[in-house]
Amino acid sequence: MSIQCPTPNHEDEVVLLGHGAGGRLTAELLDRLVLPAVGGTGPLEDAALLPGHPGLVMSTDSFVVSPLSFPGGDIGSLAVHGTVNDLAMRGARPLALSVSLIVEEGLPLAELRSVMASLGKAAQDVGVPVITGDTKVVGRGAADRLFINTTGVGQRHELLCPSAASGRPGDVVLLSGPVGLHGTTVLSTREGLGFESDIASDTRPLHRLVGALAPLGAAIHVLRDPTRGGLAAALNEIARDSSVAVEIEENAVPVPEAVASACDLLGLDPLVVANEGCLVAFVDAGAAEGALAALRSLPEGAQAVRIGEVLREGPRGRVTLRTLVGARRIVDMPLGEQLPRIC
Amino acid sequence: MSIQCPTPNHEDEVVLLGHGAGGRLTAELLDRLVLPAVGGTGPLEDAALLPGHPGLVMSTDSFVVSPLSFPGGDIGSLAVHGTVNDLAMRGARPLALSVSLIVEEGLPLAELRSVMASLGKAAQDVGVPVITGDTKVVGRGAADRLFINTTGVGQRHELLCPSAASGRPGDVVLLSGPVGLHGTTVLSTREGLGFESDIASDTRPLHRLVGALAPLGAAIHVLRDPTRGGLAAALNEIARDSSVAVEIEENAVPVPEAVASACDLLGLDPLVVANEGCLVAFVDAGAAEGALAALRSLPEGAQAVRIGEVLREGPRGRVTLRTLVGARRIVDMPLGEQLPRIC
Repeated sequence: MSIQCPTPNHEDEVVLLGHGAGGRLTAELLDRLVLPAVGGTGPLEDAALLPGHPGLVMSTDSFVVSPLSFPGGDIGSLAVHGTVNDLAMRGARPLALSVSLIVEEGLPLAELRSVMASLGKAAQDVGVPVITGDTKVVGRGAADRLFINTTGVGQRHELLCPSAASGRPGDVVLLSGPVGLHGTTVLSTREGLGFESDIASDTRPLHRLVGALAPLGAAIHVLRDPTRGGLAAALNEIARDSSVAVEIEENAVPVPEAVASACDLLGLDPLVVANEGCLVAFVDAGAAEGALAALRSLPEGAQAVRIGEVLREGPRGRVTLRTLVGARRIVDMPLGEQLPRIC
Repeated sequence: MSIQCPTPNHEDEVVLLGHGAGGRLTAELLDRLVLPAVGGTGPLEDAALLPGHPGLVMSTDSFVVSPLSFPGGDIGSLAVHGTVNDLAMRGARPLALSVSLIVEEGLPLAELRSVMASLGKAAQDVGVPVITGDTKVVGRGAADRLFINTTGVGQRHELLCPSAASGRPGDVVLLSGPVGLHGTTVLSTREGLGFESDIASDTRPLHRLVGALAPLGAAIHVLRDPTRGGLAAALNEIARDSSVAVEIEENAVPVPEAVASACDLLGLDPLVVANEGCLVAFVDAGAAEGALAALRSLPEGAQAVRIGEVLREGPRGRVTLRTLVGARRIVDMPLGEQLPRIC
């Protein structure tokens, strides 16, 4: 299940689809072009602390998913969940959202109304108010129907300060639910592959799971939702930022049968397929059972499992997978785009 | 100089360019479709107070300007100024920005680098950190080169609480600089009309002007930057939200000669052309001289003038223009799009 990546070509002079895929090309674009321009010294975090207000975090995401609707959700609900979840991964409950629309001329008003109703319902379910917004319309052909940016401000739970850089040797790695549903559902719907009758996106808010973990405080070292680039990208980012070796067990990672079938047919690795409704937690070993019970206490965490650990010895920054027969394979950071426009 | 508007056709079933123009069609889209969906009870303010943190405001804007560069600026600097200015119009200095990119596959990296450098420089000039971001790439033809969302959080100046609803009879109406430069520059550049050799966008941050007004506190009733829909839209919104009658004098509104020439040729009214570097202030009459001096104390307000007043009697919600010969004309809310994609 290791991923073979060609060496990136640094001579590329134009933006490639892979630059937006959340993998190695995205990291290069950020490190070499975006961050130097804005004076950043480290990675732009998904959610960042607000200067002068350390209890508040801010996160932004633009959603370009195609098609606009798919089994389990649409761009409206996804736009709420995506930003609420980015805030949650920094240990925060959402305080407020902004919503900014870029609409292509000619989009049926009925479709826009449906998406906005879904967005409004998702925000209401989460309990987060939409406090400000913006609408831009561009001519036919200048955008693909509808793009939505949501930006959120959240309030951190006291004592909870997870970070991708806080994984430690001995940590237990937990996963709150099955992987691969969102990416395969969107791809199958877009391409009419037929799997979409059996599966649905897992798009859902994760802030309640984080609330359930909050009493464990400092024992929760890392929280990350494995969206673009899937579980493989999330674990590689944590291994790199925490400078640790992570090992997961192949048979412990829950992959729904329909996801496995779709991935087999498409030549995709379920570990690199995007999710929108599960989280990875790196937890102090002594708190692992309590964290698992906390996750399982909520419907959205009912299928939570332990999938691996942080090795006490091993090459820093490396993620390995122990297969059913006991062999070990490296789980690489995905290079670029396998599934464009899934969020 | 009154604007003739056809009656909007409520049977339109698709989004029109005019729905994004900042005029009457935009207001209808918000009031009838967006706001009911997100549970809003009033207009979505350009910058809104953060629940539980009344000293903080939040504002979002997506930028789709075409072309990406124009005399006086580009989409990068515009994206910083636009959001900084929306925060400033609620009496706030910017604390932090998020930046979210939607990039079309194939955009030259050199062009993206140039825009990001401009964005970074604009943020540095303002003194606001970019703390979080996102990058999405869509296939060729699915977006027009580059769209940028910026969202900002700002800290309100104590005692300064301007609102579009706070205009009062007797207020003096001030304008910090000439109108029409941004819209005519972008249009002329895009269409190759030739005016762009004589004019440049006025894009600039306005937070320092607001800082200069801050000592006047509660005497500053309304601040608004006349962007989409121009001065006509800004004054109409204020007249409506404050339920007052506003009158301005035609010969007091500074219209640069090149803007006037371009507008004459194109059949545009300079009052509806977008600006990105001036503000309108409604000020208590007793504080008007002090406010004018404060604005003029800074280079970006050197050309500040008094352009009119809030009438003590007159039809509420109406904006009138007194012409050079003493006649009065109604300044209507622009209906829809005269100048698409100018921000």
